Amino acid sequence: MSSRLDEFQSYRTRMNERIADINHLGIHRFFNLDTNAYTDGTLPGKTKELLGLVASMVLRCNDCIDYHIVQCVEAGWSDEELYEAFNVALVVGGSIVIPHLRHAVETLDLARQR
Amino acid sequence: MSSRLDEFQSYRTRMNERIADINHLGIHRFFNLDTNAYTDGTLPGKTKELLGLVASMVLRCNDCIDYHIVQCVEAGWSDEELYEAFNVALVVGGSIVIPHLRHAVETLDLARQR
Amino acid sequence: MSSRLDEFQSYRTRMNERIADINHLGIHRFFNLDTNAYTDGTLPGKTKELLGLVASMVLRCNDCIDYHIVQCVEAGWSDEELYEAFNVALVVGGSIVIPHLRHAVETLDLARQR
Amino acid sequence: MSSRLDEFQSYRTRMNERIADINHLGIHRFFNLDTNAYTDGTLPGKTKELLGLVASMVLRCNDCIDYHIVQCVEAGWSDEELYEAFNVALVVGGSIVIPHLRHAVETLDLARQR
Amino acid sequence: MSSRLDEFQSYRTRMNERIADINHLGIHRFFNLDTNAYTDGTLPGKTKELLGLVASMVLRCNDCIDYHIVQCVEAGWSDEELYEAFNVALVVGGSIVIPHLRHAVETLDLARQR
Amino acid sequence: MSSRLDEFQSYRTRMNERIADINHLGIHRFFNLDTNAYTDGTLPGKTKELLGLVASMVLRCNDCIDYHIVQCVEAGWSDEELYEAFNVALVVGGSIVIPHLRHAVETLDLARQR
Repeated sequence: MSSRLDEFQSYRTRMNERIADINHLGIHRFFNLDTNAYTDGTLPGKTKELLGLVASMVLRCNDCIDYHIVQCVEAGWSDEELYEAFNVALVVGGSIVIPHLRHAVETLDLARQR
Repeated sequence: MSSRLDEFQSYRTRMNERIADINHLGIHRFFNLDTNAYTDGTLPGKTKELLGLVASMVLRCNDCIDYHIVQCVEAGWSDEELYEAFNVALVVGGSIVIPHLRHAVETLDLARQR
Repeated sequence: MSSRLDEFQSYRTRMNERIADINHLGIHRFFNLDTNAYTDGTLPGKTKELLGLVASMVLRCNDCIDYHIVQCVEAGWSDEELYEAFNVALVVGGSIVIPHLRHAVETLDLARQR
Repeated sequence: MSSRLDEFQSYRTRMNERIADINHLGIHRFFNLDTNAYTDGTLPGKTKELLGLVASMVLRCNDCIDYHIVQCVEAGWSDEELYEAFNVALVVGGSIVIPHLRHAVETLDLARQR
Repeated sequence: MSSRLDEFQSYRTRMNERIADINHLGIHRFFNLDTNAYTDGTLPGKTKELLGLVASMVLRCNDCIDYHIVQCVEAGWSDEELYEAFNVALVVGGSIVIPHLRHAVETLDLARQR
Repeated sequence: MSSRLDEFQSYRTRMNERIADINHLGIHRFFNLDTNAYTDGTLPGKTKELLGLVASMVLRCNDCIDYHIVQCVEAGWSDEELYEAFNVALVVGGSIVIPHLRHAVETLDLARQR
C-alpha cells in the first residue's frame, strides 16, 4: 500500500522532471545550487541535511520536511538525534510548529517502515 | 571601543534581567526551555547551536543570529564551517536572507577580534 | 458523516499520543507550556484563546486555526465576536490571510453544526 | 473530469459567497480593496496581477498562487514570461519556495488545458 | 529627554502625513480600514488592541508592537494582563519572538514613565 | 550630508566585498544568480525590479526595499507607478507592511533628492 510519503515522492519526481523541461537557465541553476548545498564539504553532508531539516521546520514547509527527513534517515541520523533537532525547531519556532512536528514524526515513522 | 556586538550583549543582559523580574511562570519556563534546548544531549550542544544559527538566519532575526554566532564561536566551529551553514541558510531562505548574511559575516568578524 | 474537522481532531489526538511516547523532556515541557498558556490567569482563558486564534490566522496555520476555533466556541465566543477577531487578523495580515479566513469560516460553521 | 484547479475555484466561490453573507463592514471593505488593487490604474492590471503572483509565491500561499495564475493567464502573460516571474520568486524566497514552484507549474499547465 | 518611543512616534506621525499626501485611493482606504479595525464594535476596542498586539509580536514587527503597546496602555490594560498576552505570543511564536519580547517590555516601561 | 540611504549603500558595498573574499563557491554562485534574476530576458529587467520590490515589501525587509527602490528609480519607474506597487504590497501583506511602507516612501523621497 502506498503511503502519503510515497505519493509525495512520486509527485515531487514528476514535477521536478516537468520543471527540468522548462527552458530557463536561472531556475536550472537554482536547482543545482540547492543540490550542491547538501554535499560533503567543510561540513559533512550529513550535518547539512540536519540543518536543512530544522530550517524547513521553522519555516513550516511540510514537503521540505518530508524531503529532508528521508535524506536524514539515509544519512544515518537516529530517531533520538532527530527528536533533538525537532526540539530545537519547536523551541525556536513555537507552538505554530506543532502541526509540522506531528507531520515530521509521522513521516519519520513512515520512512522507518520501508 | 565598544562594538555593536558588545552593545547588543549588554542590552540583551539588561533586558533579560528585567524580564526575570516579571512574575510570570510561563515566561520563566520558556526561557529555561530555550536554554536547555542547546545543552549536550543525544546531539552535542555544539551541533544544536549550529541548528539554532541556521534557524535564526532563515527566520531573519539579527539579534538571534548574533547570539548564536557567539555561541558557535565558543563551541569551536571554524569560520569555514560557519560559512557552510550560512550557505545552507542562504539557499533555503533566498536572497531575502542576504542582508542577514552581511550582518552574520560582520558579527563573526567582530567575535573573532575579541 | 465525519467532517474534515472531525478528521483533523482524530489525527491530532493520535499524533499527540505518538509524540507523548517520545522520550524527550524538552518536547514534553513545551506541550505543557502550550497548554498552560491558555488557562485562566490574570487574563481569562477565554480571552487568551481569542489571542491564540488571531495569532494562528496571521501566521496562516489552518490546523492551529481549527484548534483555536473549537476552543473559542467552547469558551463561549459568539459568531459575531469571532468575525471581529477574523477582521483584525485580515487587516493585520492582508489578503494572504483570505484563504485562511475561508477555512476559518468553514470550520466555525462545522463546529456550530455539532 | 474536474481538476484540482476546478475544485479550488468552486470552493473559493462557495466560501466567498458565505463570507459575503457575514454582516461585517470591515471584511466587506477589505474584499473590495483587494479586488480594486488589481484593476487598471497608473500601472496596468496585467502588471499588477504579476506583482500579486510573485508576492503569493514568496509568501508561499498555494491558493493565492492558483488565483493569480488564472488571472495572469487571462491577462495574456505567456508561459515564458511567467517562468521569469517564477524565477524572481525562487531567487528572492529560496528553496523553501520550490514546493510552491511545483504547484505553480502544475496549475499553469492545468489552466492552459482548459 | 526624548526616548526611542518618542522618536518612533514623531517619525510615525511625520511619515503618515507624508503618505496622506500621496494621491492613491487604495492606500488611503487601507489606512481607514486599519483604524476602524480597532474601534468599539461587537468586541470592545480594548480587546481588539490586545489582539493587534499579539499579532504584531508573533509577526515580529517592533514598530507595530510599539504602536499597539501605547494603545493598550491607553485602553487600560495593566502590566500583568499585558505580560499574559506577551506569554501567549512567546509560546505561539517561539524563541524567535524573544528579541521582540525584550523590545516590548522596554517599550511598556517607557510608556508607563510618561 | 549623508542620508541613511547613502549609509546603507556604503555598508552594503563594503560587506558584499567582504563576502566576495569568502572562499565558498555556493555563496558566490547565489550572488550571481541573484544579479542575473533582474537582467533583461523574456521579461524586461525593469519589470523584474518591480517584482523584486513587491516581494521585498511583503517579506518586510527594509534593506531589500532600499536596494530595489534605487534600482526601480534607475529603471525609470515614476513615483505614481511605484505607489501602485506599494498598494499591491500593502493589500497582500496587510497592516504589518505599514512600517515598511513608511520606510519605502522615505527612501523613494531620498532617492529622488540626489
